[in-house]
Amino acid sequence: MIVVLKDNPNQKQLDNLIQWLKSLQLEINYSQGKNTTILGLIGDTSTVDIDLIAALDIVADVKRITEPYKNVNRKFHPEDTVVDVSGVKIGGGNFQIIAGPCSVESLEQIVSVAESVKASGAGMLRGGAFKPRTSPYAFQGMRDKGIALLLEAKKVSGLPIVSEIMDLSQLSLFEEVDLIQVGARNMQNFELLKELGKIRKPILLKRGLSSTLQELLMSAEYILAGGNGQVILCERGIRTFETSTRNTLDLSAIPLLKSMSHLPVIVDPSHATGLSKLVKPMALGAAAVGADGLLIEVHNDPVHALCDGQQSLTPEAFDELAECIRQIMPFAYKANH
Amino acid sequence: MIVVLKDNPNQKQLDNLIQWLKSLQLEINYSQGKNTTILGLIGDTSTVDIDLIAALDIVADVKRITEPYKNVNRKFHPEDTVVDVSGVKIGGGNFQIIAGPCSVESLEQIVSVAESVKASGAGMLRGGAFKPRTSPYAFQGMRDKGIALLLEAKKVSGLPIVSEIMDLSQLSLFEEVDLIQVGARNMQNFELLKELGKIRKPILLKRGLSSTLQELLMSAEYILAGGNGQVILCERGIRTFETSTRNTLDLSAIPLLKSMSHLPVIVDPSHATGLSKLVKPMALGAAAVGADGLLIEVHNDPVHALCDGQQSLTPEAFDELAECIRQIMPFAYKANH
Amino acid sequence: MIVVLKDNPNQKQLDNLIQWLKSLQLEINYSQGKNTTILGLIGDTSTVDIDLIAALDIVADVKRITEPYKNVNRKFHPEDTVVDVSGVKIGGGNFQIIAGPCSVESLEQIVSVAESVKASGAGMLRGGAFKPRTSPYAFQGMRDKGIALLLEAKKVSGLPIVSEIMDLSQLSLFEEVDLIQVGARNMQNFELLKELGKIRKPILLKRGLSSTLQELLMSAEYILAGGNGQVILCERGIRTFETSTRNTLDLSAIPLLKSMSHLPVIVDPSHATGLSKLVKPMALGAAAVGADGLLIEVHNDPVHALCDGQQSLTPEAFDELAECIRQIMPFAYKANH
Amino acid sequence: MIVVLKDNPNQKQLDNLIQWLKSLQLEINYSQGKNTTILGLIGDTSTVDIDLIAALDIVADVKRITEPYKNVNRKFHPEDTVVDVSGVKIGGGNFQIIAGPCSVESLEQIVSVAESVKASGAGMLRGGAFKPRTSPYAFQGMRDKGIALLLEAKKVSGLPIVSEIMDLSQLSLFEEVDLIQVGARNMQNFELLKELGKIRKPILLKRGLSSTLQELLMSAEYILAGGNGQVILCERGIRTFETSTRNTLDLSAIPLLKSMSHLPVIVDPSHATGLSKLVKPMALGAAAVGADGLLIEVHNDPVHALCDGQQSLTPEAFDELAECIRQIMPFAYKANH
Repeated sequence: MIVVLKDNPNQKQLDNLIQWLKSLQLEINYSQGKNTTILGLIGDTSTVDIDLIAALDIVADVKRITEPYKNVNRKFHPEDTVVDVSGVKIGGGNFQIIAGPCSVESLEQIVSVAESVKASGAGMLRGGAFKPRTSPYAFQGMRDKGIALLLEAKKVSGLPIVSEIMDLSQLSLFEEVDLIQVGARNMQNFELLKELGKIRKPILLKRGLSSTLQELLMSAEYILAGGNGQVILCERGIRTFETSTRNTLDLSAIPLLKSMSHLPVIVDPSHATGLSKLVKPMALGAAAVGADGLLIEVHNDPVHALCDGQQSLTPEAFDELAECIRQIMPFAYKANH
Repeated sequence: MIVVLKDNPNQKQLDNLIQWLKSLQLEINYSQGKNTTILGLIGDTSTVDIDLIAALDIVADVKRITEPYKNVNRKFHPEDTVVDVSGVKIGGGNFQIIAGPCSVESLEQIVSVAESVKASGAGMLRGGAFKPRTSPYAFQGMRDKGIALLLEAKKVSGLPIVSEIMDLSQLSLFEEVDLIQVGARNMQNFELLKELGKIRKPILLKRGLSSTLQELLMSAEYILAGGNGQVILCERGIRTFETSTRNTLDLSAIPLLKSMSHLPVIVDPSHATGLSKLVKPMALGAAAVGADGLLIEVHNDPVHALCDGQQSLTPEAFDELAECIRQIMPFAYKANH
Repeated sequence: MIVVLKDNPNQKQLDNLIQWLKSLQLEINYSQGKNTTILGLIGDTSTVDIDLIAALDIVADVKRITEPYKNVNRKFHPEDTVVDVSGVKIGGGNFQIIAGPCSVESLEQIVSVAESVKASGAGMLRGGAFKPRTSPYAFQGMRDKGIALLLEAKKVSGLPIVSEIMDLSQLSLFEEVDLIQVGARNMQNFELLKELGKIRKPILLKRGLSSTLQELLMSAEYILAGGNGQVILCERGIRTFETSTRNTLDLSAIPLLKSMSHLPVIVDPSHATGLSKLVKPMALGAAAVGADGLLIEVHNDPVHALCDGQQSLTPEAFDELAECIRQIMPFAYKANH
Repeated sequence: MIVVLKDNPNQKQLDNLIQWLKSLQLEINYSQGKNTTILGLIGDTSTVDIDLIAALDIVADVKRITEPYKNVNRKFHPEDTVVDVSGVKIGGGNFQIIAGPCSVESLEQIVSVAESVKASGAGMLRGGAFKPRTSPYAFQGMRDKGIALLLEAKKVSGLPIVSEIMDLSQLSLFEEVDLIQVGARNMQNFELLKELGKIRKPILLKRGLSSTLQELLMSAEYILAGGNGQVILCERGIRTFETSTRNTLDLSAIPLLKSMSHLPVIVDPSHATGLSKLVKPMALGAAAVGADGLLIEVHNDPVHALCDGQQSLTPEAFDELAECIRQIMPFAYKANH
């Protein structure tokens, strides 16, 4: 960490600062230029509160040289983390497609989708029971009933299940859910992250709509710092000025996150684009760029259902996508390793 | 609401759609052009799920003509809402400055700040007990202890207190807090919003870092739809590409929100800019633009304290700011009414 | 186009509006609801100035149903345009890699890079002669001298050359340049676009840093409306809040642009990411998503040169990238067709 | 400037780097930590190409401590620059309102607007002759004819005139224009900026839609480096995700630009918001925040004209705005000084 001091710093404040920094076990390299005085802090600065230093009267600027995250940092954990979701492995060369409907709607629906995506090669079943909706008047999900139906579908299909938690108070309902999803809007729900750090169940952490990669890793750090190392990161689009897609899918996040961290990284092209016609090309792109998996929305009966999410694929379209992914994966894997 | 159909829509699907729309008590105006067929939906569309319609196979596009919010809409509630925070009024011509430290640190600190900001004319005392921090290693606030100290400061100073809730589980601790703040990161914590709709206590709802004004109003709608009409909106900066300020303070949000809604709108220049030198000019700007109040960070002892938040003002600087605001307000109010 | 009128519009103004719309050969569908009156405009609205209508006193809102672009619109030109760059075809199933250094620096450098990228399979040679630089103190390119060196490299290697024009006054220097690049900062230099519409030479049009896809197409429309149909579109990253890459490469732009327009779409992963380690994965991603080509920076002698652009590849790394692309292309093409 | 080296840098490359830096007259402070080696560069780094250094193999990161701009930097020119536009002063305590129509449409129109805005207190007349339009089918301005009409209006009213140049080739037409405007889309048209640096006429430089404040200053630096010190900066809104205003007016740019630079800063609330109802409040906000002037669109005959720019004020509304500004200015000035 580099601390740039203002011109002619108050000596007493400077002494206080240096004394405090030393108390944090940091070595200090003092460099006095004609106009600028710089303190180079050497040691473990990941736990230093950068805002605290930046706020000092005598400080002009503080710049990090090393990362503020530690447990998720690939530097200190060079091998890929492989997350085990009830026997289904993801990361470290294990590629998985997680598929299923946006919302659980009925037993028939979820079982039918589960069986069809399993047949197409999906490794896990997703389904929303608690739905974050912008409007209080929009469908909020089947809630505990939805979780129960997912568990039925798991029993029938044998697929591990993934569902989103929206509040700490729902945690007990997720006991038999195999992979707990933290949605984009909750990526910085720090109280929730702390609790998820205490359990021993894999977590799927989605990037917030306006979160930097470093903030995503800091949120993962909350979970790992609590003792739970089984975290999967998910890129799902960021908010930009472009309005022709719902969000802008940032595929460069994949190689960057994988260089910064050892955690697996998957991609959700359905929510990112909001358009079913973009799901296949962006899924292929994600695989080519080096993702460890995909999260794809699949709906079973778009012809008769009133609501066929405009971002959902039919089982047939999903089957074709899965086949294309299988064909492209060996080349993508080879190119990225 | 305008529903634009694709060319040659499937007749059966079209019949289903029209039947369903009629079941929602909407009148339908069918307009057939050479290339485009349009359904105009007339009636109360605020509770219609636009995504649901957009997702239909036969639909090319859906565009709202009327707003998706109702309780917060000025159209249906033309007079300004005046929020009463334990006797201190805000909105409808009542301008208030809420001031205090970022974090509650000690009894001495909070009481001293409370007394000084009261002397300068602040109407309420703010102080953080639960602190949302990007890093798990940063100071997380004094939590329940902090709330207790705030209550002490309230007793001494007579100022109503404002503090941020971070999770539903903390709600019981906020029983004597006069105004509950929902932070930017929780603006779309819908489970929390629903619960806050059930209580009878004013809520200060901050705009999310990447939330549109409409999304902010939809989050307020969650609270009002639950029966709690005492909501204050707060603009606190949005995330943009510009990095010289922490966020970009969007002052145009003030007149826009006030034309869209009857709720009071205040501004937090401290968090928005992250730079103490910008707090006064942006506070003046907010007042001139028509804000109903300000949220200002004030720290009591910046000289000796190690941590003087770089966005905090000293009590002296705050006193000067408050005086400037008092001078500019009559002209601002006249100009905006 | 849908014109939503305000409540109780002034009848005379409404008559004026309707008369004017009819003079534009538009058919008008008048739809009177209880609260909302809507005019549906049917006919060729691509040349209607939407701002002009939106600005009218009696108009509440105007919404386009059809696109504001015509010549670039795939609807009116369903087959892919194939651009012919001095015999090298791009688009319509023809995939090309354009490679070369950021700046032309010397004859030796540009010839050496030309020969090596040709050997690796590049179809064209790029090189900057005029360099848009944020700072007046940064290297501004070799200018006319650089163009001359590119022409030498073209003679030696046989590769068509691509270079960026920065101002109309440079046009005469580009007579023998095979493909003229319009950079991101000039995407809305409308005087330049108009002139480029008058010449008969292919144009490579880069998306602006903060331009929507529709704006990119409108800029291409300027060139096509002038009579020059040989335009290649290039996605090169947009400006967002994320700072870990220079820009955010928006790969979803590829399938969207190709559905909106018949023009070829290529991707520049070097400038988008600004990091050489991301060039290969993002190039693979672009190919998988369906791009018609790539623009890749290659530098010949990174060990001895002081300035090895941090986004440039060595010839060896480029050779490996090109080989990976060749392997993945058949699968990508099949998946996207 | 701080150069952070990678672990175990190649000694020969390091020697080359140090030798080269010394040749730039920079003093080098070498600081060797356990894991990190840092070079502190002391001296005039404003002309150092940061990308060039960042691109080196042995370099992990480069961070600027001092600004990359020099002529526009307040550090080296502490007093406010006062720009003199044919006798009308702006900056250094001189506040000016520049008003007029978006486009020059006729002699009658421009003379009428000129006289009315002069009567209301405007110091200069603006009017577009060359109009940058997203669509090739939208009105492109009266061009040279428009400039001629502006000159007529100048003769009649005595007001200095301001108009936008879109291309170098138009420069000769601007000989009698008192203040040449460079629009947002041309902020980084570096060839244009270089030429404008050579003339002796004040320049009004608008911030690009996605330009940082530093980039705006670097563009101004192009003009000042060329020898033309008469530059006025203009904040006119930036592109963000928010769609309820055309752009997001960033009023914090005013105090920041004025602390970074000595140049005057004005604000264009008309283009920024795109909504006439927001022009007055945002103009008041700009004045309160410390702007040196305003750029306001005024149209003369909105009742009969078909096109009343939705961002334009009537002369009556402008007169009221100007009066409010006059009342608020003394308090704003006192507060900000």
